[in-house]
Amino acid sequence: MIKIAVDAMGSEGGPGVEIEGAVQAAAQYSVSIVLVGQKDRIDEALRNHDTTGLPIEVVNANDVITMEDSAANAARRKKDSSVHVAARLMRDSGISGMVSAGNTGAVMATAKMILGTLPVVDRPALSTVLPTQKGKPAILLDVGANVDCKPHHLEQFAIMGDIYSRAIFGIRRPRVGLLSIGEEDSKGNELTKEAFTLLKRVRINFIGNVEGRDIFKGDVDVIVCDGFTGNVALKLSEGLYEAFASMLKQELQKTISAQIGAILAQNAFRQFRHRLDYSEYGGAPLLGIKGITIVCHGRSNANAIKNAIRVAQEFCKHDVNRAIESEFKKLGITRTAGVT
Amino acid sequence: MIKIAVDAMGSEGGPGVEIEGAVQAAAQYSVSIVLVGQKDRIDEALRNHDTTGLPIEVVNANDVITMEDSAANAARRKKDSSVHVAARLMRDSGISGMVSAGNTGAVMATAKMILGTLPVVDRPALSTVLPTQKGKPAILLDVGANVDCKPHHLEQFAIMGDIYSRAIFGIRRPRVGLLSIGEEDSKGNELTKEAFTLLKRVRINFIGNVEGRDIFKGDVDVIVCDGFTGNVALKLSEGLYEAFASMLKQELQKTISAQIGAILAQNAFRQFRHRLDYSEYGGAPLLGIKGITIVCHGRSNANAIKNAIRVAQEFCKHDVNRAIESEFKKLGITRTAGVT
Repeated sequence: MIKIAVDAMGSEGGPGVEIEGAVQAAAQYSVSIVLVGQKDRIDEALRNHDTTGLPIEVVNANDVITMEDSAANAARRKKDSSVHVAARLMRDSGISGMVSAGNTGAVMATAKMILGTLPVVDRPALSTVLPTQKGKPAILLDVGANVDCKPHHLEQFAIMGDIYSRAIFGIRRPRVGLLSIGEEDSKGNELTKEAFTLLKRVRINFIGNVEGRDIFKGDVDVIVCDGFTGNVALKLSEGLYEAFASMLKQELQKTISAQIGAILAQNAFRQFRHRLDYSEYGGAPLLGIKGITIVCHGRSNANAIKNAIRVAQEFCKHDVNRAIESEFKKLGITRTAGVT
Repeated sequence: MIKIAVDAMGSEGGPGVEIEGAVQAAAQYSVSIVLVGQKDRIDEALRNHDTTGLPIEVVNANDVITMEDSAANAARRKKDSSVHVAARLMRDSGISGMVSAGNTGAVMATAKMILGTLPVVDRPALSTVLPTQKGKPAILLDVGANVDCKPHHLEQFAIMGDIYSRAIFGIRRPRVGLLSIGEEDSKGNELTKEAFTLLKRVRINFIGNVEGRDIFKGDVDVIVCDGFTGNVALKLSEGLYEAFASMLKQELQKTISAQIGAILAQNAFRQFRHRLDYSEYGGAPLLGIKGITIVCHGRSNANAIKNAIRVAQEFCKHDVNRAIESEFKKLGITRTAGVT
């Protein structure tokens, strides 16, 4: 059975949230779980659940990385943190993947340091999944692993995103777009213009430039950008959704008629929220690392953790990393050691 | 009376939309209007309105720039287009500002070519106004005039945004933020990290890095970024709003109860839409050009044109360009000729 390590200390609601999600995942999916963190706190939280017969074990890690820790410091110094221990388990002890809702920068830096990057890949990319109007999710990457990118990084992100989309969402020929500021081939900044030329040559279904407004339409499956732009885009989407919801709520409370209307429509609102609910999508895979690493939002709930474990297991089952290595070799993409 | 040229041929609904907006503006504000475009079509559209006593004149321009024209070509070749004629009127004939809902790239290139940049400014910046949860709008710039920026460009954008916010929105000490991927001073890409250092030194109310999710909260008045990031952010916001509205509508049509609820709450939905309605905000000023230039969305309605004319008039009344020149001099910001 595939074994996934879960950082129990990472999220704002940890370890309770992680443990609830892990227990659900162990019960629902064919996966065994190693909870990593302060053992006494984990054991205490586990007592709230019936775990009889579930493949769950606990491994102690004394240190906790906080949101205030810098990524570099957390990676280099906090060697007994739950993230370090989980990554070492993955490197040394036959564990296939890990899930963490901790400090994203620290998780990425630690995973890179302990597990390393796949031999063919220059830079790992953090990917996320966004809901679209057509129901099918779209993958956006990089959303924050690399703030300054070179064109060939975007090329590699595109190929990894393509594999992700095929393996996890079963899309046969994912439409891959380059996030830019106009659909014409010539539009973009220096980075995207050069990346465009590279992507034209790669044997993927590259559909050209896409704009911010296209992301949610559902006409593109994989959207590629540098980590700065992607991170801004991701956080902007979150902020805008919150602003929308709050403004709409304010208006719906202003009159009795609107209040009654809102009650009658509450199921529709619930369905609507559900469609936009990030917790259904199972976190952000860090692609290109030796070992499957899924990063979750710091404010994850148990459902988000459960789904991230499901995604980690699917990544293992489809052997996404081997697919990346063989696809890179097939396409003749080689690591540009020294010039990254 | 302040005289504003209106490109009558630019929008998707032109010239009808422009003329309706111009007639409303001439009736409501103390402003006289010069409609520029194909005279026979403008005269025909004017016949649908009662313009008795309104200070509206028409100047002929035979050529029309389309959305398919490249910016450079339109600027260099289509010398008898409505945008060219409007810009020349501004340069030569005592007209203070112009409003166009045409091809944004072509309007910017033409304005730069014919009018030129203010002597102190390196690069003009396209700015836009976004609604926030607290009701007060936030200014975002650059949203597309400069896809590749240097740190000192962002510094200049910040100062121009600060002046815009004070002059047009009457904010005494605008909070200026740098769009980045974390609030800590050290977060960002090479560009924003260097810009951060510059902005720390300028005598404006620089509040540091802000993230995508902060834009709509209403805690920052001016948000500075390069034109690529800003353009992606702007189009993403538009796309997300459309996706949001369409998904909500779908859900509200699914059951009878939700349909009745939606009818009872329709006033609230209307108010909600109104709060997010870009047409209230009056277009995107191109800051740093000799002569006031306001660019409107290609899908503008008459209300958007009317409000853009109002904003152009306010820019003239507050002599924003003179304020930019004197503020740059006061702050010791000089044009870096040759290294832009």
